[in-house]
Amino acid sequence: MNHIAVFGAGSWGTAFASILADAGNDVRVWGRRPELVEQLNRGVNEDYAPGIELSSRISASTDPERVVDGAGIVVLSVPSQSLRDNLTQWAPLLTGEKIIVSLMKGIELGTTKRMSEVIHEVAGVPLERISAVSGPNLSREIIQRQPAATVVACPDERSADTVAAACQTSYFRPYTSPDLVGAEIGGAVKNVIALAVGMASGLGMGDNTKATIITRGLAETTRLAMALGADPRTMSGLAGVGDLIATCMSPLSRNHSFGVKLGQGLTLEEVTAQTKQTAEGVKSCSSILELAHGNGVDVPIIEQVNRAVHEAVPVTEIGRELLARARKSETD
Amino acid sequence: MNHIAVFGAGSWGTAFASILADAGNDVRVWGRRPELVEQLNRGVNEDYAPGIELSSRISASTDPERVVDGAGIVVLSVPSQSLRDNLTQWAPLLTGEKIIVSLMKGIELGTTKRMSEVIHEVAGVPLERISAVSGPNLSREIIQRQPAATVVACPDERSADTVAAACQTSYFRPYTSPDLVGAEIGGAVKNVIALAVGMASGLGMGDNTKATIITRGLAETTRLAMALGADPRTMSGLAGVGDLIATCMSPLSRNHSFGVKLGQGLTLEEVTAQTKQTAEGVKSCSSILELAHGNGVDVPIIEQVNRAVHEAVPVTEIGRELLARARKSETD
Repeated sequence: MNHIAVFGAGSWGTAFASILADAGNDVRVWGRRPELVEQLNRGVNEDYAPGIELSSRISASTDPERVVDGAGIVVLSVPSQSLRDNLTQWAPLLTGEKIIVSLMKGIELGTTKRMSEVIHEVAGVPLERISAVSGPNLSREIIQRQPAATVVACPDERSADTVAAACQTSYFRPYTSPDLVGAEIGGAVKNVIALAVGMASGLGMGDNTKATIITRGLAETTRLAMALGADPRTMSGLAGVGDLIATCMSPLSRNHSFGVKLGQGLTLEEVTAQTKQTAEGVKSCSSILELAHGNGVDVPIIEQVNRAVHEAVPVTEIGRELLARARKSETD
Repeated sequence: MNHIAVFGAGSWGTAFASILADAGNDVRVWGRRPELVEQLNRGVNEDYAPGIELSSRISASTDPERVVDGAGIVVLSVPSQSLRDNLTQWAPLLTGEKIIVSLMKGIELGTTKRMSEVIHEVAGVPLERISAVSGPNLSREIIQRQPAATVVACPDERSADTVAAACQTSYFRPYTSPDLVGAEIGGAVKNVIALAVGMASGLGMGDNTKATIITRGLAETTRLAMALGADPRTMSGLAGVGDLIATCMSPLSRNHSFGVKLGQGLTLEEVTAQTKQTAEGVKSCSSILELAHGNGVDVPIIEQVNRAVHEAVPVTEIGRELLARARKSETD
């Protein structure tokens, strides 16, 4: 039977499953917790999509084999840092001609690998069948069917087309791109920049400052992406500046809100206790910094965020550091 | 006596005069209306900077000759569409080695000329001494001395350096650039994109849609700028995406607010009556569209804004048009 498998029933996994269902696919979602799976089978996900009625085309199971069996496309949307462990179990299921779609936005700690690299390494899937979906896609808005566009990135054009066709609806518009590296770096780094913008906001700074941090943050994201072989045009598109703007503008963004609280003077522990979860940018900023340094790329904003988050340097001091650089030519 | 002349006492002219004063310059402001000039001489500008105490280094006059006499730098901040008429009177004063700084963000109706082209043509100033200042610079925040960065663009590096040195303060950070065309196009087109983003907001759309319009708007701004000989890197910097983001994010932006009201269903006349002024993007969008068409550049967002503003096409219909394009590769 032909259907699409989605691993992970968090906010974005559930929203993407809804898109796939609205596009006419039968969707089987894997969830770790039986109680969440049971909710999905009743057509709701009160934990991650409160108040939303899910499509009857979505079913769920805790059994990976049952979810994957007969699927042509397998979507992965688990926490970035648990991908390797999860995949080690699922690898035997991901054989054949399946196309793998990564919705994950992290860089692996310890290895500094992108999610597609982890998938390729652990499950042995060729890169021609691994794609990343990334763009200005706040899940809360998407699950309410508000208009959005995205990038489906895969080195193989046919694979990208297959995924794009599977997720096109009246409100969700996928563009294809061959630049997997660019889409993944854009998706990961934007969470760190959103933390910086949130910190500035928490310190009471205005829209000029925030727009400046976003702009300079885009510049360092682009430098890093290019050093890794990405196309700079990806950074000027939906998976680059588009995703960055949505994440930095929106009160719905966890990373931005997390940064606001840090800017207001709370410690990492206090914010984590309040929000009951760690923002992705907090987890990824040290591996992104390591990746940048390993490739000789200067990333002053990511460096300062890392100091605030992992070295407990006061956010006020970081703001001063970022603004106190000498006058020079913009493109130096 | 060495001082800086500023023509125009609107929001941005007054805020820039404050920067210049804080940087240690004596500043003479020209204003058209005697009552506004009198306010400035009392250290206030209740019309355009309410509640702000201005530096004692700022003085004002209605006499252009008195304002320019002895100035090495002359800043122009009058309404774009009145620049030609004003300059026709002031041209005899702008001789010698003066550097002209344009703060204006329009394209001339009828001629589709940038402000620097009008200055060069009417006052005979060589382009090596004409610069534009552009960036994420909401005047309300700047006059409150909140941190901001900007671009000083001039084909001649020494002129750009002179202007940058004159406006550097602890809260205002100028970067130099040789790309005058890019800075002017970025500054002008962003107002039209901000109208489109405002319209989407007024129609009830969320941050994904707004980020998408900003991203696609940046792409068409870049296409137009490059067709006119600009450096695409300017569009990825403060005078491009930076200014665009600040203008589209901020409730302080007139163009954005104007668009919101159009999106809510008010007519151009109704919005103009409510706000008692026309937003710059409304005035410039037809000349920008003409400039794009004259250079064979496809600008679908600007086209749709123009239809809403000047052809009274309902904003709901425009939203549909912008979202209904076919699936394709992002960089096509």
